[in-house]
Amino acid sequence: MSKGNLTMHTDAYELSMMQTFWGKHLQNRNAVFEMFFRKNPFGSGYAIFAGLQHLIEFVNHLHFSDKDIQYLKSTHLFNPKFLDYLRHFKFHGTIRSAHEGDLVFPNEPIVQVGGPILECQLLETTILNIVNYQTLIATKASRIRAAAGKDPVVEFGSRRAQEVSAANWGARAAYIGGFDGTSNVLAGQLFDIPIAGTHAHSLVELYGNDYDAFKAYAETHHDCTFLVDTYSTLKSGVPAAIKVAKEMGNKINFKAVRLDSGDQAYLSKQVRKMLDAAGFTHTKIVSSSGLDEYIITQLKMQHAKIDAWGVGTKLITAYDQPSLGGVYKLVAVDDGTGELKNAMKLTENPAKATDPAKKQTWRITSGDGKSQGDYITMDGEDPNKEHSLFMFHPKYTYINKTLTDFKAEPLLKTIFKDGKQVYHEPPINDIKQHAKTSLSLLWPEYKRQINPEYYPVDLSKQCWENKQNNIKQIREYLKKL
Amino acid sequence: MSKGNLTMHTDAYELSMMQTFWGKHLQNRNAVFEMFFRKNPFGSGYAIFAGLQHLIEFVNHLHFSDKDIQYLKSTHLFNPKFLDYLRHFKFHGTIRSAHEGDLVFPNEPIVQVGGPILECQLLETTILNIVNYQTLIATKASRIRAAAGKDPVVEFGSRRAQEVSAANWGARAAYIGGFDGTSNVLAGQLFDIPIAGTHAHSLVELYGNDYDAFKAYAETHHDCTFLVDTYSTLKSGVPAAIKVAKEMGNKINFKAVRLDSGDQAYLSKQVRKMLDAAGFTHTKIVSSSGLDEYIITQLKMQHAKIDAWGVGTKLITAYDQPSLGGVYKLVAVDDGTGELKNAMKLTENPAKATDPAKKQTWRITSGDGKSQGDYITMDGEDPNKEHSLFMFHPKYTYINKTLTDFKAEPLLKTIFKDGKQVYHEPPINDIKQHAKTSLSLLWPEYKRQINPEYYPVDLSKQCWENKQNNIKQIREYLKKL
Repeated sequence: MSKGNLTMHTDAYELSMMQTFWGKHLQNRNAVFEMFFRKNPFGSGYAIFAGLQHLIEFVNHLHFSDKDIQYLKSTHLFNPKFLDYLRHFKFHGTIRSAHEGDLVFPNEPIVQVGGPILECQLLETTILNIVNYQTLIATKASRIRAAAGKDPVVEFGSRRAQEVSAANWGARAAYIGGFDGTSNVLAGQLFDIPIAGTHAHSLVELYGNDYDAFKAYAETHHDCTFLVDTYSTLKSGVPAAIKVAKEMGNKINFKAVRLDSGDQAYLSKQVRKMLDAAGFTHTKIVSSSGLDEYIITQLKMQHAKIDAWGVGTKLITAYDQPSLGGVYKLVAVDDGTGELKNAMKLTENPAKATDPAKKQTWRITSGDGKSQGDYITMDGEDPNKEHSLFMFHPKYTYINKTLTDFKAEPLLKTIFKDGKQVYHEPPINDIKQHAKTSLSLLWPEYKRQINPEYYPVDLSKQCWENKQNNIKQIREYLKKL
Repeated sequence: MSKGNLTMHTDAYELSMMQTFWGKHLQNRNAVFEMFFRKNPFGSGYAIFAGLQHLIEFVNHLHFSDKDIQYLKSTHLFNPKFLDYLRHFKFHGTIRSAHEGDLVFPNEPIVQVGGPILECQLLETTILNIVNYQTLIATKASRIRAAAGKDPVVEFGSRRAQEVSAANWGARAAYIGGFDGTSNVLAGQLFDIPIAGTHAHSLVELYGNDYDAFKAYAETHHDCTFLVDTYSTLKSGVPAAIKVAKEMGNKINFKAVRLDSGDQAYLSKQVRKMLDAAGFTHTKIVSSSGLDEYIITQLKMQHAKIDAWGVGTKLITAYDQPSLGGVYKLVAVDDGTGELKNAMKLTENPAKATDPAKKQTWRITSGDGKSQGDYITMDGEDPNKEHSLFMFHPKYTYINKTLTDFKAEPLLKTIFKDGKQVYHEPPINDIKQHAKTSLSLLWPEYKRQINPEYYPVDLSKQCWENKQNNIKQIREYLKKL
């Protein structure tokens, strides 16, 4: 269901609208849709784009099977002739998108789909489903990575992920966002991510005591990380681990002990002392007890002796904000003249008004390579051709600056051209490295865990004026009613 | 990935432990694992069990392919001989479980897996992944259904679901929990759930005004629900909908208008007046603006004129608590004597201590059929054979009652016996009806949206004493160290 054909993984209203486009002979009208989100998740100063690999798989498999058409007919919701037309559905459009690992910010286009309106409309639901979740998790992972500093962090959330594909694609997004691996074997297999994991409480329960369980584990594995809290971390778990490690000597690598309950600051300090006193100064302490970026920060402030972190529920579900809320909006459409014209939504909620026209997002950096903000232009504008760049806040226009020493990099790059995939993703480790490099170009002020500085996302003058004109036109149309 | 073989969808530590069981020749030791959760989600007084269909699919497909073994070898984490052994892996165990649509409560076994320990251990991750999510969503849906009373409620969350399988299985769980349908076409196709959906803002943007868009829609559909907030609900959207409906007359069924932004109480009242004044007294008003059970309750208290509800993000992600937190624990294991003995975890956190032994959960009802609480017994105990039932709180034992006129129904029923599926799920509408009936047997005090009364989940005397003895034994073992 998750691999292969997701054509039917769409909202019924996409099909209803497609029936209208088809019925009114507008199916081939050229249109542009853009995906954006309105707010960074978790109060973060940035987000990390992810989801492109799944998006590419989805687009490459688009078609309605006979069984699909048969099912749609059985609902009696659609015109049978329209459904016959869908048998020949193919995607001919052009998709431009951020690359995985790119930093992305609110209110800027991060995915752009252009082509026949009927085809582009169909893609909405799945693109949002994929990019919303994976971008959310890559961002959460990056925040946890920042809190953990250089310590290893491993994704442990499969059992708490929201069903199967979240567990797998979430593990991959977490890796892109800076995690070192996952406990999820299938994610490791599918996406070439390191996997990790040793044993659970059940092994200790089976033997009824820590010593026998650790001994059995040590006799069947070279690398040993013992889970020490099944009965009592300090009284039985750690002493048993030390005893087994001494007995086994060089036959095993006593890598770590894992703490999974109790006060992690107190316990880790005591355990460190016990391990050191026994000569196991290189044995690490892993914590895996309800962690997120805030708890890791707190534990570090208390000088907890934790060397590595296993993070589950709060990462894989994005517990404190389980949805990014990205949307996919029509921004331009051929009105019959053969030219793209503005399309805009205003609604009752001013925050929900969209920026009309086909656009490009540019990342502006100063001479030293550090980011200066993002700059959204009409498609075709190139800030690199300007001598100086006037950047102003799109709402509070008195907040502005003029740059002379700058470089502008386009964020949206072509992934599909006229229905054909033209971009092939680099290996996962390159994507991961790209995220790391991108973050290093961002001022620390934008990366603060809580209350970061606002990263500018500005409209070009042309783009801003186009929007104002469009609002004016709609207001005039409403007045005349 | 989500359909078919999920054998590799497991935590690496399950495989590491399996290697130890195999290496120590314990692979066929008889063991029993039980899944339970510790707290109802959302402050609810109950949860609704879901996930069994996916669990059954998962178990029926269990096996390691050559490609899987090859991948596992490539990680160099496992003994190659152990991996060769896995080629012949087959599940021979017995699974007892609640049925979908059953009410379930904290700290009681809801899924029980018994059989060779190596086989049962492997299932942990996927069982938790599936049941945790689907039970969470069925429960959330049931709360929203309760708030909406008899109004239609439709699941609209695919675009915000955490990836593909959450969108689909979530739609199904929502249907079980009381929703009337979904916008998700694939979920409709896979699970035989009614689908619904008309049009988005993009249709109105395409035409640049509400009237032309609604007219085009009406000319290509019989049933029409118009989305009226693209520019202005009261100034343009609703007047355009009325105009089109008048022009089209009997050619269309002017079913509803949909409000998607702005104040839903105020707007719905104004829109109701406009529709009634135009003679469209049967045309409904649908709301789909950031809804959950609390907002629906508030809008109803303000007498909003909303007839039907489209609920997205907050349902499908279980926004206010995106994880159920269910666990899967070893409770009994053959110690070599051929008999099942207690297995228990104590840990540093008293709330995380488990109830040892293979158990059964019984639903106790009084003569009038209303539920009196749940009663957990040792496997083999049958409360129906008792003349009177003494039910006491497992922590505050002075809270107790004695029932004489009662009936006890076992919750855990056999799904797989010795590896073979013996239970086949009823049609989805029967499952949905079962959830509804089950809820009707629960006192309203347990169903209050906020701060419901605590539903008793008690241990039988035998079960309670067995636990106390086990704790005592572990404490003695710790003392001796």
